[in-house]
Amino acid sequence: MAEATAKGACSPPTKKQRTDDCSDAVDSTTDQGCVGDRDPHFLTSFKDFEVVRVLNNDEERKSVVVECQIKGREGVAVAQLQKLPFNAQKLGDILSSGTTLKTLFQNDIYYNKTALVPPDLNEMKATVIYPAEKKHILRYEKQPSSFIQETPRLFREVTKRFIETSSFSKEWIYNILDHKKEVDRIVFEDPDPDIGFILVPDLKWTGEQMEDLYLQAIVRRRDITCLRELDASHLPLLRNVLEKGSTAIKEKYGIPAHKLRVYLHYLPSFYHLHVHFSALSFEAPGTWAGKAHLLSSVISNIETCSDHYQKVTLPYTLKDNTPLSAMFKDHGYFSE
Amino acid sequence: MAEATAKGACSPPTKKQRTDDCSDAVDSTTDQGCVGDRDPHFLTSFKDFEVVRVLNNDEERKSVVVECQIKGREGVAVAQLQKLPFNAQKLGDILSSGTTLKTLFQNDIYYNKTALVPPDLNEMKATVIYPAEKKHILRYEKQPSSFIQETPRLFREVTKRFIETSSFSKEWIYNILDHKKEVDRIVFEDPDPDIGFILVPDLKWTGEQMEDLYLQAIVRRRDITCLRELDASHLPLLRNVLEKGSTAIKEKYGIPAHKLRVYLHYLPSFYHLHVHFSALSFEAPGTWAGKAHLLSSVISNIETCSDHYQKVTLPYTLKDNTPLSAMFKDHGYFSE
Repeated sequence: MAEATAKGACSPPTKKQRTDDCSDAVDSTTDQGCVGDRDPHFLTSFKDFEVVRVLNNDEERKSVVVECQIKGREGVAVAQLQKLPFNAQKLGDILSSGTTLKTLFQNDIYYNKTALVPPDLNEMKATVIYPAEKKHILRYEKQPSSFIQETPRLFREVTKRFIETSSFSKEWIYNILDHKKEVDRIVFEDPDPDIGFILVPDLKWTGEQMEDLYLQAIVRRRDITCLRELDASHLPLLRNVLEKGSTAIKEKYGIPAHKLRVYLHYLPSFYHLHVHFSALSFEAPGTWAGKAHLLSSVISNIETCSDHYQKVTLPYTLKDNTPLSAMFKDHGYFSE
Repeated sequence: MAEATAKGACSPPTKKQRTDDCSDAVDSTTDQGCVGDRDPHFLTSFKDFEVVRVLNNDEERKSVVVECQIKGREGVAVAQLQKLPFNAQKLGDILSSGTTLKTLFQNDIYYNKTALVPPDLNEMKATVIYPAEKKHILRYEKQPSSFIQETPRLFREVTKRFIETSSFSKEWIYNILDHKKEVDRIVFEDPDPDIGFILVPDLKWTGEQMEDLYLQAIVRRRDITCLRELDASHLPLLRNVLEKGSTAIKEKYGIPAHKLRVYLHYLPSFYHLHVHFSALSFEAPGTWAGKAHLLSSVISNIETCSDHYQKVTLPYTLKDNTPLSAMFKDHGYFSE
């Protein structure tokens, strides 16, 4: 019944239709769908889905992205399935007679089981893009990375050139520093033109719970792009950000300095010096070695050797499909 | 029916019985259970379980550990539930008419849904410890950590004393170096007494797939405990481990050097110098800044300043319930 209705109500779109109607709407936020949503039975289940290939299987986070074909429809779909965190409110329902257990093995007081949980207590999140274009597939496909061992020479010959020739707009940063935007989000501000900064919540933090506290300090000076440029002349600035930033977080959120992770990214996502503050309990994105540089280490390294960051090799991971990676390749880096 | 049988077949153990029969068997590997396994209906479901409190809810990895009481039985149980990674072989079954979808919202070509998946295609892993003792609860309970900013002085006055006074047995390391154990696991060996090392797979790696490749190099010299002791005199050793270790992995597993993460831990888990090699695609445990020190950085830092690691502050995260944390507390660290 459902099958007949679904097929009857919505004939497959032709390639021409889809391209004309939808290709420019990929990033729009209009509510006008072009396929499927005229059919009330489309996507009430995964009926007629056929797996083409797995684009990414994240075993750590328990999510998978699959390229699919849908029987009777043109083009491809991208389907993402994500297992959800446990909801503490529902644990009483899960730990009940409705959850049956099968023994894997038992040893003394240790029981190893598989648990079959009623579907409504074990929902997943599903996201489907249909019709999907090449760019959707590229966005979700697992991208390999490589380690770059950036010597001072490679910085000058490749990375610095990349920073100078790429057009990164810094308007949004200057809007914050000039009080044109996000004024109500400012947690702390030091107006000093040399060592001052503005502390604002990171966009990834909802601001609601302290477990995933995440803020960033944007320095007032507009002439420092990144870690590579820091030397002893910047120590007053760096110490000021560490001390006043930590104190402001202690006063506003009650989290002491030794429960904070304070770090710079190298490479950063934008080239105006900024410092991340996150709760130690939170595994914030980009806290691994080869990306995060703890500010206390940076200060100590510069105290020990003023031009430390102009002299050392800085290793970092870089996605293979990025423009900078292509520049390293052109430079002969990977054939060394 | 099941309820009556379960209760009839196995009367609750008394406190005395449990302590006598089981308390020493916690870490044993015998097959003799002491409770429950005489009752064929015990733990065929979570019937009669009552949540006492959540010990740890890992939202990133989708696992939860709960302290429970079981109606009609003495003592407490610890139950761990873990959502499992997607099995690529079963995706065809999951993406079928058996999985129903409920709409959260839809925008253009993007469909946001919750998915109800048949229980046998969405199994969890369940581990139950019953009867559980205080130490089981301590082991699973989320332990807060703090950042230690270890100055050279704090190293001398606290950490070094901790290393010297704690009794870490190194017999298992010497067994490997002396070819008494794990000889068949050796991937590469350099017999040089000064710069030589043995490369073996880490116990956490099954050795089956390259995605989570993980090995470690154990240096032959027995007089170097950790990162703090390294200076220019160790550069030949460090360069040798980096170069020959990477080459051996390339030859045996086909993974080139720029797809490897090569690092030391500080603090390490044992105090005999060793280096970790893991696949870049693998988020190995302990790769965050404040734990992992990339070997190429370590070499570069020492090249720039011979006694770098004797002079700098080394920040690291430390669990609050460890003996070393207690020593820092006694030293007045947290009251500064």
